[in-house]
Amino acid sequence: MTAPIVAVIGGGQLARMMAGPATELGVTLRVLVESADAAAAASAHEAVVGMPSDADAVSRLLEGADVVTWEHEHIPAEVFAAAAARGVPALPSAAALAHAQDKIVMRAAMDRLGLPNPAWAPAASHEVIEEFLHAHGGVAVLKTAQGGYDGKGVRIIRSAAEADDWLAAAAAGGPPLLIEEKVPFTRELSAQVARRPSGEVVAYAVVDSLQRDGVCAEVIAPAPELSVQLSEQATALAVTIATQLDVVGMLAVELFQVGDAVVINELAMRPHNSGHWSMDGAVTSQFEQHLRAVLNVPLGATAVTAPWTVMVNVLGGERTELTGALAEVPHADVKIHLYGKDVRPGRKVGHVNVRGADLESALSRARETADIVRDLTNTGDV
Amino acid sequence: MTAPIVAVIGGGQLARMMAGPATELGVTLRVLVESADAAAAASAHEAVVGMPSDADAVSRLLEGADVVTWEHEHIPAEVFAAAAARGVPALPSAAALAHAQDKIVMRAAMDRLGLPNPAWAPAASHEVIEEFLHAHGGVAVLKTAQGGYDGKGVRIIRSAAEADDWLAAAAAGGPPLLIEEKVPFTRELSAQVARRPSGEVVAYAVVDSLQRDGVCAEVIAPAPELSVQLSEQATALAVTIATQLDVVGMLAVELFQVGDAVVINELAMRPHNSGHWSMDGAVTSQFEQHLRAVLNVPLGATAVTAPWTVMVNVLGGERTELTGALAEVPHADVKIHLYGKDVRPGRKVGHVNVRGADLESALSRARETADIVRDLTNTGDV
Repeated sequence: MTAPIVAVIGGGQLARMMAGPATELGVTLRVLVESADAAAAASAHEAVVGMPSDADAVSRLLEGADVVTWEHEHIPAEVFAAAAARGVPALPSAAALAHAQDKIVMRAAMDRLGLPNPAWAPAASHEVIEEFLHAHGGVAVLKTAQGGYDGKGVRIIRSAAEADDWLAAAAAGGPPLLIEEKVPFTRELSAQVARRPSGEVVAYAVVDSLQRDGVCAEVIAPAPELSVQLSEQATALAVTIATQLDVVGMLAVELFQVGDAVVINELAMRPHNSGHWSMDGAVTSQFEQHLRAVLNVPLGATAVTAPWTVMVNVLGGERTELTGALAEVPHADVKIHLYGKDVRPGRKVGHVNVRGADLESALSRARETADIVRDLTNTGDV
Repeated sequence: MTAPIVAVIGGGQLARMMAGPATELGVTLRVLVESADAAAAASAHEAVVGMPSDADAVSRLLEGADVVTWEHEHIPAEVFAAAAARGVPALPSAAALAHAQDKIVMRAAMDRLGLPNPAWAPAASHEVIEEFLHAHGGVAVLKTAQGGYDGKGVRIIRSAAEADDWLAAAAAGGPPLLIEEKVPFTRELSAQVARRPSGEVVAYAVVDSLQRDGVCAEVIAPAPELSVQLSEQATALAVTIATQLDVVGMLAVELFQVGDAVVINELAMRPHNSGHWSMDGAVTSQFEQHLRAVLNVPLGATAVTAPWTVMVNVLGGERTELTGALAEVPHADVKIHLYGKDVRPGRKVGHVNVRGADLESALSRARETADIVRDLTNTGDV
C-alpha cells in the first residue's frame, strides 16, 4: 500500500495530535522537529530533526512528500521556495499564511474585505501612538505585528512612553508595531472552518473561548446563549476569510463579542487550541480535518457528538508528573490528552475534554480533572 | 515527563490502533514487530523488530517497560519467564491467556464455571469422533485446540474420515483436536468487558457480530432487538469469565444466540474485531481501555455516543489502493480506519464506522463506503 506522505513543519502538540488521525487514514505523517524529544517526535510516523531554516533538514522533510503543511506560522520564505522547487504543494500557501504571520497584513486584508476590524493603525512612531491614544480615550492595545502568541507581543498602553522599548526594537530591525482600539468585549468566540483546494469549506460550531492571562484556558462548544444570527455571522465571516484569502487547512478566527456583534481579533491557519474540543466532541476532529484539507480529499462532517463539549487546558505546575495523574482522576468519562512535554509552570502540557447534556456538570468535571492532572506529584506509580 | 512504557507483542492492526490512545494518555507504546513494515511499526512510539521466540528482541522489548501485553494469543512461555525475570508484569497472565490459546482448556474452564458451553469433547481418536457424531445427529464442528483464527482451524464434519488429516497431524505433534455440537444459532453476539488488576470491571454494549466465511464482516452496536434479559445474561457471563479467570485487559466473549439463550463460542483476551465500533461509538475505545487496564489505572466510561454504531470490515480486493479511496467516499460522517497493510484478497485491511439514529441508513452508508475503499483502483492521486 502506498501511503501519501504529509510533511509538517513543527514538532509540538499540534503536529503530535495529527498522528492518530493520520494513522487511521492510512497517511504517513512526517514531522520536522527541533529535537528528538519534541512532543511530536515519537508519535509521528517519521521525524526529521532540524529547524525550518536548515535547508538540509527541510530537503529531507520534503523528499517524496505529497504536501507540506505547518503547525505554526514561523515558516521562512526559503521553505516555500524549496517546496516549489520540488513540486510539493505547500499549504496553506505563503500568500495566505502571511495573514497569520503579520497582524498588519491581516488587519489591512480585513479592511479590504469589509470585515469587522477594531480601529487600528500601523504604529511606526511615537506620534502615531500619541494620536491614536488621544482619539481612543487614552488606552489602546499595542502589538508586535509578528511573533506574538499566548499574550506575548501584546501590551495595553496608556501613554506612548510605554511603547518606547518596542519602537526602539522595531527601529533596530525587530517586528513592526500596530496599535488597536481596546475592544470592550463581553466574551471571546472562535469560529473555525476548514477549506480544501477544491473550494469545499466546512464550518464547526462557534465556540466560547475563555482566556486567562492571554492564554486559552477553557472552551465551550457550542458557545452558550449565542444567538443564531451572531453564530451565522461569525461563521460567514470565517468562510469569507478562508475563501477570499485562499486558505487551505484549518482556519480559526478569534473574535471579540461586543453586544450582539463581533470584531475580529486574530487568525490562525492551522489546528488551534479553540478547536481541541473537536477531538471528542465532533464527528471529525480538527486534526483529521486539517489532513483531509491539505490532501484535498472530501472534508469530514463537523456535527457535534454531544449537546455540550468543554475543553480545559492543563497548564504545567511546579511538580507535575502527568501520567501518574491518570490513576487519580475520578471521572470515567473525561478524555485526557497529554502532550509529552517537559513540564514548566504555565506551559500548556495537555487538555481534557468532557461531553455531556449538562453544561455545568461537564465544566466542573473538566476543571476538577485538569486541576488533578496539573497538581499531582509523581507518586512513582503509573 | 516520564512516560510509562507499555510493551506489546504483535505488530498488526490491533497494536497499531493502540498508538493513538497511547499518545493521548502520555504513554509510550513499544511494539515487537515481525518486520519494519508491519502495520504497527511506524505508528508505535518505539518498535523492536523480532519474533516472540527471539530472546534478544524480547529482552529489548522488556527493557524498562512498565507492563507487557499482547495483541494476539501466540505468546511462548519463554516470554512470560523473561518478563518475570525482569519484574515486568505480563498481562493478561499466562494462566489467563491459556484459555484464549487453547480451546480445550477454555471449554473445560467454562464447564467448571457452569457457563453455557455447547456439547463438546476432546477429539483424540477416530472412535471419539464417530461416537460424538452419532450422538449429535451426524454433524459436528471439529476444531484444532490451538492456532485457529478467522475460520481457520474449524471444519464442519459429517464423518470421522473427514478428521483423518488433522488426527494424523495431532498424532505427529500438531495441535490436539476437539469436537463440538453444531449450534443451531440465530445470530452471533459479542460481549466485551475490560478488567484491571484492582478488580474493577466495566462492560461494553453487547453487539451483533455478523460473520461471512468465518471472518467478521459487520458489527452492530448495540445488538438490535436484544432483550434486556439476554443482554444482562451475556454481560454477566463475560464479567464472570474475566473475574474467575483473572483476565486483565480487554476480553471478548463470542456467543451464539439460540432462541433467548446464549452459548459460548470463543474467547479473546485483547482488543477484538467485534469492538472496533468503540473507536467512534463509545466514550472510551477498546484500545484506550486495554492500555488503562494493563496499566491498572481507572477504566474509562463505556457508554455509547450514538444510538447505533455500525462497523464494516474492509477486506482487500485484487487491485485496491486504499488511500486513494478517501477521495471517493461520498459520506462525510463515515469514520475510516486503515491498517497500512499490504493488500491481499480477503485480508482485513481496514474498517469503517458509522454512527447514527437510523440503523438502516448507517448500515447502508458503511457498506457503501467499505465497498468503495475495497474496490477502488489506484488513480495515482492521493
